Amino acid sequence: MNKVEPKILPGFMELLPADQVEFNKIKDIIRDTYENFGFIPLDTPIIEYSDVLLAKAGGETEKQIYRFTKGENDISLRFDLTVPLSRFVAQNYFSLAFPFRRYQIGKSFRGEKPQKGRYREFYQCDIDIIGDGELSIMNDAEIPSIIYTVFKRLGFTNFTIRMNNRKILGGFFSSLGYSENITDILRVIDKLEKVGESGVRTELKEISVTDEAIDKILKFVTIDGSCSETIEKLRALNIENELFVTGVNELDAVTRAVKDFGLPEANYKIDLTIARGLDYYTGTVYETVLNDYPKIGSVCSGGRYDNLAEYYTDRKLPGVGVSIGLTRLFYQFKEAGIIVPKQSSLAKVMIIPMTEDLSYSIKLASALREKGINTEVYYNQKSIKGKFNYANKLSIPYVVVIGDDEIKENKYTIKDMEKGEQQTVTLDELLKILM
Amino acid sequence: MNKVEPKILPGFMELLPADQVEFNKIKDIIRDTYENFGFIPLDTPIIEYSDVLLAKAGGETEKQIYRFTKGENDISLRFDLTVPLSRFVAQNYFSLAFPFRRYQIGKSFRGEKPQKGRYREFYQCDIDIIGDGELSIMNDAEIPSIIYTVFKRLGFTNFTIRMNNRKILGGFFSSLGYSENITDILRVIDKLEKVGESGVRTELKEISVTDEAIDKILKFVTIDGSCSETIEKLRALNIENELFVTGVNELDAVTRAVKDFGLPEANYKIDLTIARGLDYYTGTVYETVLNDYPKIGSVCSGGRYDNLAEYYTDRKLPGVGVSIGLTRLFYQFKEAGIIVPKQSSLAKVMIIPMTEDLSYSIKLASALREKGINTEVYYNQKSIKGKFNYANKLSIPYVVVIGDDEIKENKYTIKDMEKGEQQTVTLDELLKILM
Repeated sequence: MNKVEPKILPGFMELLPADQVEFNKIKDIIRDTYENFGFIPLDTPIIEYSDVLLAKAGGETEKQIYRFTKGENDISLRFDLTVPLSRFVAQNYFSLAFPFRRYQIGKSFRGEKPQKGRYREFYQCDIDIIGDGELSIMNDAEIPSIIYTVFKRLGFTNFTIRMNNRKILGGFFSSLGYSENITDILRVIDKLEKVGESGVRTELKEISVTDEAIDKILKFVTIDGSCSETIEKLRALNIENELFVTGVNELDAVTRAVKDFGLPEANYKIDLTIARGLDYYTGTVYETVLNDYPKIGSVCSGGRYDNLAEYYTDRKLPGVGVSIGLTRLFYQFKEAGIIVPKQSSLAKVMIIPMTEDLSYSIKLASALREKGINTEVYYNQKSIKGKFNYANKLSIPYVVVIGDDEIKENKYTIKDMEKGEQQTVTLDELLKILM
Repeated sequence: MNKVEPKILPGFMELLPADQVEFNKIKDIIRDTYENFGFIPLDTPIIEYSDVLLAKAGGETEKQIYRFTKGENDISLRFDLTVPLSRFVAQNYFSLAFPFRRYQIGKSFRGEKPQKGRYREFYQCDIDIIGDGELSIMNDAEIPSIIYTVFKRLGFTNFTIRMNNRKILGGFFSSLGYSENITDILRVIDKLEKVGESGVRTELKEISVTDEAIDKILKFVTIDGSCSETIEKLRALNIENELFVTGVNELDAVTRAVKDFGLPEANYKIDLTIARGLDYYTGTVYETVLNDYPKIGSVCSGGRYDNLAEYYTDRKLPGVGVSIGLTRLFYQFKEAGIIVPKQSSLAKVMIIPMTEDLSYSIKLASALREKGINTEVYYNQKSIKGKFNYANKLSIPYVVVIGDDEIKENKYTIKDMEKGEQQTVTLDELLKILM
C-alpha cells in the first residue's frame, strides 16, 4: 500500500507527552485561578458565520483569517476569543446576569506567516468582566490580583504588572494638540532606551512635533516612582484637560485598591508609555513583564473598553479583561529554559506483574486508582529490564513488582525510581508512600 | 451603525453558563478517570493536511469533512481523533514508549445534515493503548474497568458494558459460508426484538440465507447467560473454525480478567450481536448502554484493531480503545432529564461590600481565594436587593455582607442562600462554613 507521509502543517504546535504534561499543568493553573476568582466557563464554537466574526475586523486580521464556504454558508474559524464573547453576550443578553464574569480557554486561528514562536493555531486564556450599562472601576483593580495569582502559582516572583490609563494618554496628548498622532509618538517613545533622549527628540521632530511639546512629552513619559508618587507627579503637571484628570483619578483609585488586594509593590507599577490597541481600549490598560526574561515581552495584557458588542447591539456593555497567549508563552518558556519537561506520563506508579495470574496485580491497580493514585499496569510480555526501562522512559516515580513471594505474603515490593531504593511493604504502607 | 445579527451556525452547540458548568463537570470526570488509569494527554492540531486526514476516509466521511485551501495548502478540520492519533504515532514512533497509552479530549468536525441531537462540532473523549508489534489481551480487559469507573463517577449504577469479539463473529459466519454478508445479516438480527423470530427469518431468507443457516444463526445470537455460561455455550457449538476458537478464547480471557478488575457482574455481559465498524475492529468490541435510558444507545464504544497506522507506516501497531461522544451525550442527558443544571457560576461565595471603603471586603476575598474558595466580590452600585438577586440568579451558595458593624467588630455576616439562614461569625468560623 502507498503510504502517506505523516506530518502536520507548518506553524502548528503539537507536543510530545513530556511537553504536553507541562503545557496542561500551566493551563490547569490558569483555569483554576480564573475559577478561583469567580469566573464562569464559556466555550463558543470554533466555526462561526464570517459576517459575524468579521463585523469589526479589517486589515491584517481579515487577511489572516481561515475563511471558506461549506454548503451555502460563508464561515470562518475564530481568530480570537473577544469577538465570540461580544456576539455571545449580545445574543444571550436576557439570559445572563451582569456583571458577567466569563473565562474562556481555547484555540484560535490566524494564518500568519510562519516564523519562530508564531503559531497559526494557538490557545488563548481570556477573562472579561462585562457590565450592563456601567461597570465599577473596582473591577479594573481586581484584574492585577488575578494576573498576580496566576504567575505566582506558575512559580514566578520577579514580574511586574504595568498599568496605565488610556484617558491619561488621550488627555495629555490632546492638551498638546497631538491627539491624532498618539500612536506615532508612542512608537518613537518606545525607542527611548535604545536611542536615548536625543534620538527620540530627532525622530519626534521628523513627525512634526514642536520642541516645546517634545519637552513636555519627555517629562511626561519619564515620570517614575511608586504608584502614589507617579500620581502626585501627574497632578503636579497641572493639566486641566478633563479626560486627563479623570484618567489620573481612575488610575489613582485602581492602584490604591490593587494594594488592598495584597499585591506587593514590587509586582505592579504605573508605566505611562503603555497604550495597547488604541482603537479598542478606553481606560485602564495592563501589560505584564517577567523581569528576568525581558525578551519575552508582555505575558498577559488587556484593559478596559467602553463597548464590547457595538457591532451587534445598541446596548452599552463596558468591560475589562486580560488575555494570556498560552501557546506562544509555552514556546517562550521552553526557549528560555523556564520549563524543563520531566515526566512523559501522569502515572504515579506502574505495577509489574511477574506471575502468569494477573489478578493480584489487577486488584492492587483498582485499589490504588480508587484512592486517586494514577496507576498503570504493564501487561505485555517483556524482560524485567525492559519493563523497568519503560517506566524509566516515562519517568514514572514508583514501580511495584508483584511476584509469587509477594502474593504468598500479601505484600508489595515498591521501588522509588529516582532514589533507586526498594522495599517490600504491606498495602497500608504502600498507600502511605504513594498518597 | 448597522448591526450584524449575533447568531451561530445551525448544528453547533453553545451552552449558557448553567449548562456549561455541568458539561465541564462531566468532561473533568472523564479526564480525571483517564489520567487515573495512566493515560497521557495528547492535543493534536484541529487543522491538518487533507491528504493526511483523508488517507483512509471515503464515502460519507469525505463528503462531511470541512475541507478548504489556504495559501497553497489543501487542509481539513479533523473529523475524529483516531486518524490524528495514527498520524501522530507513525510520525513520532521513535520518541514514544510503547505501549503508548494516550487520551485526547477535543473537538472534531463533520458537516452532517443538521438534525436533533446531531452536532457538526462535537467533543470526543478517546483513550487508546497502542502496542509496538504486539499488545497483550489484558489491555482489552482493562478497558471495561475504565468505562465502569467513568460512568460510576458520573453517578450511574444501572449500565451494562456489552462485549463481543469480532473473531467469533467472523469465524461463525465464515463456518456457515456467509463471511461476506455479516453486516447485512447483523442488521436483520438487530430487529429481533421488534419483528420477532419469524420476522427475522423472513428477512434473512430475502437476503438468501438458507433455512439451516438461519437456525444456526438464531441459536447463536440468542445465546444468553453469564459470561462463563455464554463461553461454555459457544464452545458447545463445536465450531472448528480456527478464528472462532481464538475469538472464544480471547473473550474468555478478557471477561475473566474483567472480574478481577472488580466489576460487578451486573455491569458487563457478552452480547454476540455487537459488531461495530467492520472494516476496522479485529478483536474485542465494546458498547455501553444505560439500562434506564435505552433510547440513548451506546454511550461508550470501541474495540481492538490490528493496524492503527497502516496508511502512514509499515509498522504493525495494534491497539485497543474506546470513545465517548460527549457533545451528543450531553444533549441526550439533558433531554432525558439526567442533568438538571443548577449553578450558573462556580463561585462558592459572593462578598457584598456595604461601605464605601472596599478594603475590608477585598482583603477577605484574597484570604478566601488563597484557601481555594472560589470567591466573587460585587463591586457595582446597586440596591442590596439587587445584589442578592444577582447572587440568586447565579445560584451562588453563600453571600457575605460587610458593613460598618462587621468591620468594627472584625466579623462577617454570612447568609446560606438555600436555607435563608444568616449569622455573624469570625473569620475562622467563616472558613469552616465555606471549606
